[in-house]
This record gives sequence, structure tokens and C-alpha cells, in this order.
Amino acid sequence: MKLYAAMIITCLVFVYNSQAQDDADSRIIEEIFKEALGDNTAYENLRYLSKEIGGRLPNSPEARRAVSFTARIMREAGADTILYQDMMVRNWIRGEETATLFSQKYGSRDLIVSDLGMAVPTGPEGLRAKVIEINGLEDLKNKGEEKIKGKIVFFNKPMDPTLKSTFTSYGRAAGQRVRGPSEAAKYGAVGAVIRSLTLATDTFPHTGVTRYEDEIPKIPAVSICTAHADLLSEWLDSDPTLEIRFVTTGRLLPDVLSQNVIGEVKGAEFPDKYIIIGGHLDAWDTSEGAHDDGAGCIQSIEVMRIFNELGIEPKHSLRAVMFMDEEVSGEGSITYAEHVRNTGEAHLAAIECDRGGTSPVGFYIDASDEVIQKISGWKNHFQPWGIHLFTRGGSGADVGRLKEFGTVLIGFLPDTQRYFDYHHSPNDTFEKINKRELQLGSAANAALIYLIDKYGLE
Amino acid sequence: MKLYAAMIITCLVFVYNSQAQDDADSRIIEEIFKEALGDNTAYENLRYLSKEIGGRLPNSPEARRAVSFTARIMREAGADTILYQDMMVRNWIRGEETATLFSQKYGSRDLIVSDLGMAVPTGPEGLRAKVIEINGLEDLKNKGEEKIKGKIVFFNKPMDPTLKSTFTSYGRAAGQRVRGPSEAAKYGAVGAVIRSLTLATDTFPHTGVTRYEDEIPKIPAVSICTAHADLLSEWLDSDPTLEIRFVTTGRLLPDVLSQNVIGEVKGAEFPDKYIIIGGHLDAWDTSEGAHDDGAGCIQSIEVMRIFNELGIEPKHSLRAVMFMDEEVSGEGSITYAEHVRNTGEAHLAAIECDRGGTSPVGFYIDASDEVIQKISGWKNHFQPWGIHLFTRGGSGADVGRLKEFGTVLIGFLPDTQRYFDYHHSPNDTFEKINKRELQLGSAANAALIYLIDKYGLE
Repeated sequence: MKLYAAMIITCLVFVYNSQAQDDADSRIIEEIFKEALGDNTAYENLRYLSKEIGGRLPNSPEARRAVSFTARIMREAGADTILYQDMMVRNWIRGEETATLFSQKYGSRDLIVSDLGMAVPTGPEGLRAKVIEINGLEDLKNKGEEKIKGKIVFFNKPMDPTLKSTFTSYGRAAGQRVRGPSEAAKYGAVGAVIRSLTLATDTFPHTGVTRYEDEIPKIPAVSICTAHADLLSEWLDSDPTLEIRFVTTGRLLPDVLSQNVIGEVKGAEFPDKYIIIGGHLDAWDTSEGAHDDGAGCIQSIEVMRIFNELGIEPKHSLRAVMFMDEEVSGEGSITYAEHVRNTGEAHLAAIECDRGGTSPVGFYIDASDEVIQKISGWKNHFQPWGIHLFTRGGSGADVGRLKEFGTVLIGFLPDTQRYFDYHHSPNDTFEKINKRELQLGSAANAALIYLIDKYGLE
Repeated sequence: MKLYAAMIITCLVFVYNSQAQDDADSRIIEEIFKEALGDNTAYENLRYLSKEIGGRLPNSPEARRAVSFTARIMREAGADTILYQDMMVRNWIRGEETATLFSQKYGSRDLIVSDLGMAVPTGPEGLRAKVIEINGLEDLKNKGEEKIKGKIVFFNKPMDPTLKSTFTSYGRAAGQRVRGPSEAAKYGAVGAVIRSLTLATDTFPHTGVTRYEDEIPKIPAVSICTAHADLLSEWLDSDPTLEIRFVTTGRLLPDVLSQNVIGEVKGAEFPDKYIIIGGHLDAWDTSEGAHDDGAGCIQSIEVMRIFNELGIEPKHSLRAVMFMDEEVSGEGSITYAEHVRNTGEAHLAAIECDRGGTSPVGFYIDASDEVIQKISGWKNHFQPWGIHLFTRGGSGADVGRLKEFGTVLIGFLPDTQRYFDYHHSPNDTFEKINKRELQLGSAANAALIYLIDKYGLE
């Protein structure tokens, strides 16, 4: 009987302790959310990054200002060390970008277009040719060289609005922009006009990088706003002989130096083990880069500020990583991964915030089933704030390269229904950020890092 | 052995059937979402209601146009019957609404204000007095009659940004607007200026109804935009002798006739049992009423259109109810409940959509534990679309009155983080509606009604 009694007491003490632990965590996580929601620093920092710095391609003066600015605010947020990681980046500079439609039936009209990043220029004299509409990459071979040769290919496959994930819709349509120009050139096209990748019908052109294949003629390429893509398609239906003239003078100069910038708080117990959280600091020059990805950068820094404000001293070293060059060549993520390879630094977990600054929904986890289960076990701390999804999924382009080191990769997931309305366009401005939604995202990340730091991921 | 074998087979058949059932439901619900996401009718209807009709107090010509318009689109959506329910509504008409701050220290400046619905006017000569800042209703007795008498009371308690629910924040601060003027008058105040109920700091004044107590002097009252509430508070700190002059000429005329309008699809099996879904058709005159509550009205109608388009014939009779007068006196909900009381119509379930047109999150259910459990059991059909919350909670002001009839009451819950940025203000415009988010809300409601109709709620 004594033995049983002892066992029962042990069990009760265990249950009591873990309940007490859970309650203590709940209280701290509540404080984390209240700190985030009651403070304007993150919102104000994002305003500065979006409005006073603005679009920031990796090769731009704006990117250099963004590096200095985020270094400063990371210090203010409590970083004890600021690290810089140099890299060479492509030096593509946007120039003129205009387009006009000429129809013998309807007359002429200007189109709203945006040069694709890394695209070759038409030069100031422009490019004028007949147009053939193509419904996605797979449609090129249906049309064939005979119909395509000498023409401007108009890729007009819209993002599918009926899919569950807007990112899946984007992924399925993005090939037109990324590979379209080279694929079209294989059939003799002389230029490419690509429907903007958005679910909205409006007059914002959505830029983005295009990648040319070696050995294939490089043809100029622009994106066209969806309102004008619809118009062009309608005109083409009844006037297949219409022509487009477009002028782009964007050009590629020799590579230049750019940098990742990292804020670090040394861990109290395991200073050599890292938990990192980051976003990409570069943003398309036609936007303010508020949702993509100013929000992710500022939220990463805010985690540090919240810890500092609440006196939470992480056991592991914590880093906020401002990755450079996500939009063009990914040199920032390559450079960071190289650093980890060279130093052998142990990275426990890496969270990427690069899906916009809207209401937090959950986290995608790229790890073993056991780790996913462990993280999901913390769900009860998040659900009262509407954060409910803890599931297997992709992290992101920047932290993804740490997979080879066994790091647990996590992708922060906000509500992405409206994300592509902004993405890569002049519509991605600070005004489209809701303060509370931004703050809730910071808090969600801070809460998750608090738990990972406290309990590890074994 | 034979008996066991028979039992096992019976079990397997049961499991197989319920699995097949589940799969069939999944397919139909997938179709419901795809229909909603692939069709522009709801978005276009909401554009018309917001932009071409606009703000629509129950007593206004706009409300009458909204009744005709929604009757028409309900017919187009497949309603076989249109019902009208008459009621008398308050006939309050907004007039001039201006305010100026006079400080001997800082000079004078205009303030952005909005008259409160049902407020008595100052008259064209205006009201000028010294100002006392009050931090919520509970602060009145701290200040006392001596300090308040003869002054304009400035209620400046902000919505608490750190709470989990923005509706709770609103609820805790809204007393200042609804009861503030009468409470202040008890201490001798001559007018009231109320901080706009929003979490944003901006220049939109948020109106809303105020309710005077009988036997207490009725004093004029306006809401002030949060940017100017902050400014007024700052000025008051260093110049307690400053004065405000405000002019309101809004007036109350004798009651007029208004209407609920209802679209009905007769049920194939249980025509005398109703499932209803609705929102309120009236909206503040200073807004377009896009989120509050054009979205809820249009989503309710869209459920009917989706069913019609997919050939889903409901077993129960289905109604989309456009409640009138939610914003002022609630006559629409009173009238509908009276109709149910008089006719004895059986109402199985009533869903209210009145929390804005953002991404759907779930449903609040006001019913027995068994019913909540049954509805929660359908969660797996919703989760792939991010809809995860099925929990006990309040339905809404319009369907709430059906509780006495044993109706299962349900409140549709979208993501409400940014809702109060729009609520009751000129910022509640169609541009703040995201098409996909609106469509997902329609689909969520259609899917829930499909399941309730098919399986009942016993």
C-alpha cells in the first residue's frame, strides 16, 4: 500500500507540476501578446522601412539604408551583437517601361506594364510585333513555332481563384513569368507580356524575376496589369492582327556588394545553439515592400524587443536575420547557409516570416513527426488568439537551405487570402498593413520561440 | 460464428456507408467553395449596394432602394417567394455636424466629428462650453458634479488593444457612446464628445446610436475621430480652460414605415421547417455599409445562388433575411420574431452574418452541448479552407430574438482584427472588401446550411 501511495503521490506531483508549468507558460504568452498589442514600435518601424526607405532591390541605395536602419532598430530591440554577411548581388536597374496597343479596329491605347527583374531591355527604340495569346507554359507547344515565331507572346493564364491556397494558385501560374520568356524564345518569340500574378482585377502591374536559360535567345519581357490583360485578350479575340510596342531600358551592370544583417542575443545556457527568425530585407523597387517582406523583417526584430521588454532571457542564442536578395538570386540565404557550414554553428530552429503581415493563422513545420507533434502540443497557448494550424509544410526560400544541417524549419503562416493583391506591385504599401494583425504576428512568433527555447525540440 | 460475421458485415457496411456519405459531402462542399470563388455575383452585388446605393438608415430613400435591390437579386439567386415585413422606424435625419476647438494658448482648430444617431441637436447656433476629459463611464463619479456641471464631457476611454477579441474591446468602450450622454447629463453636463470606437488612429469619425434615459435632460453628442481625440487630450492637459463649440442639426421626425425583405426557397421535404440566414440591410449614413453589414446581406443571398447554381434542393425551407433597423432600434428583429410567434413557423436554425466580410474563421453556436457537438463533428469539411472554430458563442442582435422558439442560433465569425477600423465610419467602403474573403464567407455559410439541411440538428 505504501508503494502505491508513493506512486500516486508522485503522479499527482507530476501532474500538478506540469499543470503549474502550463499555467506559467500561459501567463507569459499572454504577456507576450499584450506587449505586442500595446506597443507601436513594430508598426512605426515598418512605416519607416516602407515609406521613408521604400522599395529596396539588393543592389540599391535603399537596400543599404535598410541594412543600417534594421541594424539600429535591432540594437534598440536588445541585440547585443550585430553581424553583417557580405555577398555579391546582381546589379539590375529598372529603366523606362511603357507599352502601347495598336489595333486597326479599335485604335491605340497605353497599357500599364512593369519590366521583369533581370529582363533584357528592348532598348529605347522599343519592340513592336504582333501578339499571340498563350494559356500557360503548357500551351506553347499547342500553338507551335509557326504561330509564335516573330511574335510577342502574351501569357494570360490567370491564377486559379478556386484553389484552397493562394500560394498554390501563384505557384501554378508563376512559371509563365519565371520561365515563360525563355520557353517562348524556343519557339521564336521576340518578346513576352505576362499577365500579372494576382487574383485581383486592377491596374497594378506585378513584377518579379525572370530566369533566362543559357543558350536560348534572351527576349524582353514585361508584366501587364490584369485589367489590361483582360482588355488585350478581348481586343485580340476580334482583332488578331493587333500589335504591341513596348519599351524597356532596364539593364544589368556588374555585380555589387550587398549584405545580410543579423541581430543576436547571446543565450544564457546554450550560447552556441541558435534559434533564428527572419525575413528578407530586399523588396521590389516598384513597391514599398510592406507585406513582402517588410512585415516579416520587422516581426522578427519585434520578437527580440518583446523578450527584452518582458525580461525574458533566452537560454539559446536568438538571431533575427534580415536576408538580402530573396527576390533576385537568393544570395542572402546561400551566404547564411555557407556561414553555418563553415562555422559549424548548431541551429536548433529557423523560422521564416515571408507570407505577409496579416492575421496569424499558424505555422508550417518541416521536421520529423515527433517534432511536429511536440510543437502541436503547445497549440492550446495559441488557440485563444485564433492561431490554430500547426502542420507539416514548407518554411520558406531563405531558411530552407538550413535543412542539410538538421535544423527544424518553420514557416510562419498568416492569412494569405489577400496577399497576392499586394505582392511585387505598387499596391504593396504600408497603408495595406493593419497594425493589430502585424502585432499579432510578432506575438505568435515570440510565443513559439519562447516555447522552443524553454523546452527544446528533442 | 454466423451471428458475429453478420455483425461484422453490418458494422463494415455502416462504416463504409458513413465514409461514403462523408466523401460525398466533401465533394459537394468542395463544389460549393469552388462555385463561390469562381463567380463574381456576390462581389458585384455588394459593389452595387455599397457604391450605387450607399449608406442606408432604416428611414432613408437608400433603405427603400436597398429593399428593392435585394428583392431583385434574391429572385435572381433562385428565391421562389419574396416576403416583406412592415415596421415603423425612427426617423432621425442627420444635419450639419461641425466642431471647433478654442484655446487661448494654441489658437483654434476644426475637429472632425460625427453626430450620434438619435442625438438631439445643438441647433444652428451651436453649443460652446469648457471641456472635461472623462475616462469611461465609471470615471464620471470620480470627477463629480462640481467639475462636470455646465461643461462638455469628453469621453476618451480608448478601446483596449490588448484583448483577444476586438468585439470585447468594443463592448467595453461602447457604453460611453450608448449611455454616456445621459450619464453625463446626470452630473450637469451640457454636451458630450465621444472618442470614436476604433483601434486605429485616424481621421474617420465613427458614429452609432446613443440612447437617452427618460426623465434625464437630453444633451447633444458627437463622436470625434481618434486623431483629434488624442490632440484634444493633449491640449487639455496644458490648457484646461479651452472650449469646444459644436453644431449639430440632426433631428427626429415622426416614425415612418420601413421593411424587412426576405427571399425564400420552399423546402422539398419539410416546407414548414425553416433554416434562415441573414444580415442587416440598414447601415450608417456616413458609411457605405460594406462590411457593416452589406457583406452579411450579400453572403446570405449568395448561399441561395450557390444552391441554385449547383442544383442543391434544400429539404427544409431556406430564407435569406434582410433585417432592417439593426443600427437604430432593432425593429426588424422584433418584427421577424413577432412573425414567428404569430405564425408558429418552426425555425430549425438561424445564422447571423454581421461581423464583416473578411476571411471566415468559424461559427459561434448558441444551442445545447449536443447540437454544438454535432455541428463541430462537421469540422473536417471546413478545416481545409482555414475555418476551424466551432464553439459556444453569441449569434447576433437580429437572430438572437428567436431563442425563445428553441431555434439553434449561429453567429458566422470572420477574422475581426480590422473590423472596427471600418465600423460606422466613412472608412467602411467597398474598397475595403477583399473579393476572395467575401466569397469564402459565402461558401462557409452555404456549406454549413447544406449540412444542417441534410442531417438536421437533432
